[in-house]
Amino acid sequence: MELITVREIFAQPDAYMDKEVTVGGWIRSIRDSKTFGFIVLSDGTSFEPIQVVYHDTMENFAEISKCNVGTALIVKGTLVATPQAKQPFEIQAVTVTVEGASTPDYPLQKKRHSMEYLRTISHLRPRTNTFQAVFRVRSLIAFAIHQFFQEKGFVYVHTPLITGSDCEGAGEMFQVTTMDLNNIPKTEDGKVDYSQDFFGKPTNLTVSGQLNGETYAMAFRNIYTFGPTFRAENSNTTRHAAEFWMIEPEMAFADLNDDMKLAEEMLKYVIRYVLEKAPKEMEFFNSFIDKGLLDRLNHVLNSEFGHVTYTEAIEILEKHNDKFDYKVSWGCDLQTEHERYLTEEIFKRPVFVTDYPKEIKAFYMKQNEDGKTVAAMDCLVPGIGEIIGGSQREDDYTKLTERMKELGLNEEDYGFYLDLRKYGSARHAGFGLGFERCVMYLTGMGNIRDVIPFPRTVNNCDI
Amino acid sequence: MELITVREIFAQPDAYMDKEVTVGGWIRSIRDSKTFGFIVLSDGTSFEPIQVVYHDTMENFAEISKCNVGTALIVKGTLVATPQAKQPFEIQAVTVTVEGASTPDYPLQKKRHSMEYLRTISHLRPRTNTFQAVFRVRSLIAFAIHQFFQEKGFVYVHTPLITGSDCEGAGEMFQVTTMDLNNIPKTEDGKVDYSQDFFGKPTNLTVSGQLNGETYAMAFRNIYTFGPTFRAENSNTTRHAAEFWMIEPEMAFADLNDDMKLAEEMLKYVIRYVLEKAPKEMEFFNSFIDKGLLDRLNHVLNSEFGHVTYTEAIEILEKHNDKFDYKVSWGCDLQTEHERYLTEEIFKRPVFVTDYPKEIKAFYMKQNEDGKTVAAMDCLVPGIGEIIGGSQREDDYTKLTERMKELGLNEEDYGFYLDLRKYGSARHAGFGLGFERCVMYLTGMGNIRDVIPFPRTVNNCDI
Repeated sequence: MELITVREIFAQPDAYMDKEVTVGGWIRSIRDSKTFGFIVLSDGTSFEPIQVVYHDTMENFAEISKCNVGTALIVKGTLVATPQAKQPFEIQAVTVTVEGASTPDYPLQKKRHSMEYLRTISHLRPRTNTFQAVFRVRSLIAFAIHQFFQEKGFVYVHTPLITGSDCEGAGEMFQVTTMDLNNIPKTEDGKVDYSQDFFGKPTNLTVSGQLNGETYAMAFRNIYTFGPTFRAENSNTTRHAAEFWMIEPEMAFADLNDDMKLAEEMLKYVIRYVLEKAPKEMEFFNSFIDKGLLDRLNHVLNSEFGHVTYTEAIEILEKHNDKFDYKVSWGCDLQTEHERYLTEEIFKRPVFVTDYPKEIKAFYMKQNEDGKTVAAMDCLVPGIGEIIGGSQREDDYTKLTERMKELGLNEEDYGFYLDLRKYGSARHAGFGLGFERCVMYLTGMGNIRDVIPFPRTVNNCDI
Repeated sequence: MELITVREIFAQPDAYMDKEVTVGGWIRSIRDSKTFGFIVLSDGTSFEPIQVVYHDTMENFAEISKCNVGTALIVKGTLVATPQAKQPFEIQAVTVTVEGASTPDYPLQKKRHSMEYLRTISHLRPRTNTFQAVFRVRSLIAFAIHQFFQEKGFVYVHTPLITGSDCEGAGEMFQVTTMDLNNIPKTEDGKVDYSQDFFGKPTNLTVSGQLNGETYAMAFRNIYTFGPTFRAENSNTTRHAAEFWMIEPEMAFADLNDDMKLAEEMLKYVIRYVLEKAPKEMEFFNSFIDKGLLDRLNHVLNSEFGHVTYTEAIEILEKHNDKFDYKVSWGCDLQTEHERYLTEEIFKRPVFVTDYPKEIKAFYMKQNEDGKTVAAMDCLVPGIGEIIGGSQREDDYTKLTERMKELGLNEEDYGFYLDLRKYGSARHAGFGLGFERCVMYLTGMGNIRDVIPFPRTVNNCDI
């Protein structure tokens, strides 16, 4: 059975006009009069559904007219132009076959459902307009990111998900084990006997592929990762999930400026790609989810991102401290309210904040000559705040080990990482983009639970 | 500092000929005479390194000549054609700057290292020829797969990594927990109190995204997943890893034939892509890793895949039972030795084996009318055996629930899955491709540990 997709019809209707086509899809709505009926059919390949007209000349006219919303049909008919109607063409059905029935209690009736309700049926919500748009755009963004890096010759590296736990702040990590939790093996001194675990030692789910990624940047020069990361944070916000995807490019022979250039180029590339490939979906978001979205994205495409040092940013923000719940002063970490104020009110476009105090940033960031700050950058965007965080990495063996000592990190745990500074060290820089935040930014969706097919949050791991 | 990549130079040398270029890279080898020296420099962007010639007119001539293998350099000079030499061009250096030194004990000297040794330095091995080739090709294969599906309009779905454990055979799964293993909370009757765990219930790492994927196929028609999966199998073979990536497409309004067509098309697309984008790497594999690789892949491109039912395959194999460790008979599962015999000796090309006994296949596969077999397919390829396993799915609610009862599966655990058969069920089919097996197949690499950047196997979770 050769079915064509609704997407193919919309892509070049003239090629199919007045010809016989066969499509399979699901009923979005159906209404009939005595002698004919209309079906709005979606096959999921196109944001726009297609209209089917069927007549009582079909022997199963009555059966079809009784079909519930959600029924799967196979429709054979002729594509005809309908210049007077709202839709540009429709299928005049010759045969309509029920592939799979639906029932009157189908959870997705033709009415508006709340996001909360739809979260309880995460296996069915992709059939709604909103989630058709969200998850098609999510797919396009993912591909655009791959294409962007591949076109530039970056090597895609699959960094590991399960990691030895020694190296990282274990508090917010998920442990991975095959031991029987009802009967944990213990050593003679009463501690967990990890030698009996699958890997023979404690293991966790990764929080970042960066350190592994750096090893590959020092071999391939330009690499990126794109994979899942995990945080066991007990925070129930609209921006946090326990499982999310990250993109982490890393470039050797590159400094913080190269890093920011790459980030800006990437964001613009992705926005352009999605506007081009999913115009209907983006119009939908603009109309029903986030009015002003298209203007904002187009504005980003046409502006240079701003640049400001952390120190300058603090000076600016201090003048507006009356507007913030948390007052800022030099040395404090920026909260979302500050980030959004900077990008939305002050710069009115995406902005890079650079050179943060070393105390609030990670040990591996390159120390600036002032002795106080590091070559870090955060990219802030309107509506979201921080979407990208990156830095040039400390490539000097001595400075890196001294900083690790200050922070009480154990050099032995980082042998592989220090090797990169021993054997042909080179300046290098990279950043992390939270994929879901990027999807939220491009769709205007306000809750991270609504841009992940099956979101995982505290006390929530359904399906 | 504007550096160009060695890749760019090789891509269009004429554009740079007799012009000044600046490259950054690492010394592969270095030798000098009294007045000049040669450096073979790799920047990791190109399988072929570039030759640099430097002269004692440079004030740091002596410093450079003392550099060890692995040193990072920045070289500025003129690209000149060398029609008499082995390499087509070289850089006549004007300045050579040491970016980061290396030491005489650099673990990758200019000699052949064993794969076993290189596995102990997984952070440095990507700097060798073999692993430069492997991991660039791995990256290209990943992208080719994305591009293949995106070009066909398939939606990329990120299925979850952490899953509720109720639904699946828990024996070979990794558990995920935030509970303190030294002090597991217990309920009054002495069992693990999962209500105190992060998700409020037992959770595991996924072994497949298929069931989730099906829910999206019933919304978008054509979808694919590409993500990590996990098996806690205690098997130390060259083909098993605890953490690996899988691609799982799923198509609604599709049957087993559509499924096989897609699999064949995908494999051919990926092979063609890699041969075109990485000819040097593929020649390297053909010369040094797996003689005959290129012939085999080209042969696959130019042949139709074979088709044979399981029942026919057993009849064929029974005639050769003397050659097998495990003798075959109807009802048995095929071992790798049988699979390879079929594809290598009998068909001499990839072959689909279809319609397996239902007892050796999963509950969700569509039952054939004979009452004995299911609409399953495995794709077998020379050198590997099974590389793809797929099936048409049971779309009939009654048949599916009856089969689940026979197997003792709890319907309540599969509510979301059964909903797909209640609300607009449609014939659908999909398959799983083990990504690492695919990389092994295309590179000729014999051990899965050598196609994963940081492999995870029993008792091995380094870096």
